[in-house]
This record gives sequence, C-alpha cells and structure tokens, in this order.
Amino acid sequence: MSQPLLLRLEMQELLDRYVAAIDDDRLEEWPGFFTEDCLYEIIPRENAEAGLPAPILYCDSNAMLRDRVMSLRRANIYERPMYRHLLSGLSIGPPGGGSEVSMRSNYVVVNTSQEGSSSIYQAGVYEDRVVRTEAGWRFRQKRVVYDTARVATLLAYPI
Amino acid sequence: MSQPLLLRLEMQELLDRYVAAIDDDRLEEWPGFFTEDCLYEIIPRENAEAGLPAPILYCDSNAMLRDRVMSLRRANIYERPMYRHLLSGLSIGPPGGGSEVSMRSNYVVVNTSQEGSSSIYQAGVYEDRVVRTEAGWRFRQKRVVYDTARVATLLAYPI
Amino acid sequence: MSQPLLLRLEMQELLDRYVAAIDDDRLEEWPGFFTEDCLYEIIPRENAEAGLPAPILYCDSNAMLRDRVMSLRRANIYERPMYRHLLSGLSIGPPGGGSEVSMRSNYVVVNTSQEGSSSIYQAGVYEDRVVRTEAGWRFRQKRVVYDTARVATLLAYPI
Repeated sequence: MSQPLLLRLEMQELLDRYVAAIDDDRLEEWPGFFTEDCLYEIIPRENAEAGLPAPILYCDSNAMLRDRVMSLRRANIYERPMYRHLLSGLSIGPPGGGSEVSMRSNYVVVNTSQEGSSSIYQAGVYEDRVVRTEAGWRFRQKRVVYDTARVATLLAYPI
Repeated sequence: MSQPLLLRLEMQELLDRYVAAIDDDRLEEWPGFFTEDCLYEIIPRENAEAGLPAPILYCDSNAMLRDRVMSLRRANIYERPMYRHLLSGLSIGPPGGGSEVSMRSNYVVVNTSQEGSSSIYQAGVYEDRVVRTEAGWRFRQKRVVYDTARVATLLAYPI
Repeated sequence: MSQPLLLRLEMQELLDRYVAAIDDDRLEEWPGFFTEDCLYEIIPRENAEAGLPAPILYCDSNAMLRDRVMSLRRANIYERPMYRHLLSGLSIGPPGGGSEVSMRSNYVVVNTSQEGSSSIYQAGVYEDRVVRTEAGWRFRQKRVVYDTARVATLLAYPI
C-alpha cells in the first residue's frame, strides 16, 4: 500500500474522531486534538478571500481552546446545539518539510433544534495543518472557512 | 498497515453497502446484513438517553426484519421514500472478547419527495455491534438513535 | 490488504479529488478527470429509469467538457454556485474485462446562495466507469442521475 493512501487513511481517522467528539458533546476532549502552540479560527469566506482578519472565533493557544470549552459549559443559558458534521473532498497537500501535513476538506454541519427540526447550519472548508507528535497526529492549525451567512456569532461552538 | 486501520476500512465498506442497499431500494437485501439472532431498533434520542424503551421500530430477530420488508412492499398506498444516507464520524470501540466490534457513526438521511423536493429527513447516530461470520461481517445489533422530531412513525422504513 | 479494499481507497481518493476541484471552483481541472473519449451526462431519475434520453447536460468528448468550462466562465451574468458535494454509499462493481471499474455512489450537493443561505441543491447517484491510464485513473463515463426536481437547467454546472 502506497504511503499517500496510508496517510490519507490516518487523516480520515483523525477527522472522524474530531467531528465525533464535537457531535457527541465531548467538548472537553476537543483541545486534545491540537498541539499546545496552535491556531484555531472560524472565519467567513469573504474575509478569508480578501485577506481581512475578522474571525468569529480565534484561539492561538491550547489554553484558549480550553477556556472556550469552560465558557461554553458555563453559558447554560444558550441552547446547546445538536450537530452532525459531514465531511467530503479530503485533499492532502504535497509533503512539506518535516512531519507537517496540510490538507483541506469540505464540511457541512446539520443541526437539530430543540424543537426537533434538522437543517443545514453551516457549510464550508477546513484548512488544516497537522503534525505527528509522540501521542499521535495533532492539529497545529485549523482554519474553518464558512460559506454560510446566517451563523451564530455570540458564543461560537467548535466546528 | 495497522490492524485498526484495516478494520476501519472493512467497517466503512460494510456501512456503505448497507446504506446503498436501502437507498437503491433493494430492501430485500436488508435483512441479509444482520445475524439471525439480532436487534434492530429506531429510537428517539430523548428516550435513548433516559433509558426509556419506546422505539418506533423494533425487531429482535432476522425473521422480523424480513416481515418488515414484506409489510413495506405490500403497503403500496404509502409514498416510497427516496433516501440518500450520508455517514461521518465513524469511531470504532476497543476490541471486545471474541470477534465482536462495536462502533458509532453519524448519519443524515436526505429524502426527495414525490414532488421532487430534497431535504433533510432525519439525523442521528448508529450504535452498532458487528460480528464476523463465515459469510462476512454482520450486524448483531443496530440501534438507530435519531435527533430529529418530525419522523414518520406509521410504517417506518429502515434507516 | 485485499485488492478490493485497495481499489476502494483509490476510487475514494479519485472521487474526493473530483468533488474538491468543483467545490473549490477549479473548473479548468474538471475535464482532466476524464478520458479523451468519454461520456458525461446529467439526467433526471425518471428519464434514466424509463430509458428516455433527456439529459440536461450531455458531453461525449473531452473537447465538449472543455467547451462547457469556457462557456461557464464567459457566462458571468449567472450567479456562480458555491457547492459542497457530500458522497456516501460507494459500491464497486465486479471487475470487468481489462482495467475498467464500474461503481456507484450517492451524492448530495449543498449550495450556498449569494445571500449566504446554505441548502440542499441536488441529491442523486453517480454511475461511473473508470479506467486506469498512464496518468492515473480517469472517468470514461460519468452519469449523474438526480432525484431532485428543482434543478437549474439553463446553463448546468458540473456535478
């Protein structure tokens, strides 16, 4: 089996574990998918394409990711979302220096409201940079670039 | 290639064949994905979380699955659905005793009505227990736990 | 690792690259996924099942695919779609003579309008015939059979 196909399988497994942790509401596990020194941001497509920084969520360290989880757990006045992430179109970039992997994938998040209605909440692209650590693959960078306009910005949930 | 990644591939192949049989309306093949002694149920999330049994479909033998298919084929007064299952977030549990595998995956079912409108019909989680038989992998248990409230309960189709 | 599982991985990689090229608006790469002598068509399910030819898009050579891309690029009066393809249920047919592979997969296309609303645009099935060339796997035939009725037919985009 070729090295690129094997890498692809490992990336799919990582992405599947990542979305399952969010969708199963195991948010406390979410920061563990990232390196200590990391970048996570959720940004609208127009801004990403224009090179304008205006993310609705921006964390540049693992500590900020953990803070975010605590904030979300405390903010129990907000409706807890019920997400189901769907992924497709995984493409893995050419191998860079060292053990870093860059990749892109489409995502669509289906949400079910508390009234029980399921609909598309958000669609977009993951732009990821992943490194192999002693504990396994971790995201060093995850840019969530979303197409959809109607996105809740008040206290954004991980995507 | 590692054993867990190989198992993962085999499970994806099984799930893909399973949803393709339903989506291509080859319902007669559906019971063949299960062991003779099996459990299949479709249950709302609130009930699953509260431990309350109130499935909208419950079959505890392969004979009941076959009966269900016959009932659906006879009940030609109902609109035949046109499903497209989408899966994601496959996570495979730790190996148990023997050859049984437990796994979870997200599903979203898109349905196209007879008027030709495509929309999300149902979102939820598969909770599966799978065993290796002489004829290949079979579901010993499949719990379909759905998030969505507006679900047709009169004569439930396989999900 | 078994030959069928390896082939499956290669087909998934091909399909993922194919949908990523469309979704990332790299349309100029689209004809490169096909052999010179090829068939690409988008056809409603009723017509496909009735054996009636009435595709909304029909190209029987690579030159026609390239023409289509040029037409779409020139027709800048139309709203450029923002697709996210989701795939599932890949099933690969028995090996035929030579190196040709036949396969089917479900697709659902989510589109985000210029107003920023994301919704299901189209659902259906890919019916593909793929051959191995010196440059890699290429589609010799791709039939896009769609379930959905409300489909823009004026100047169809690749699916």
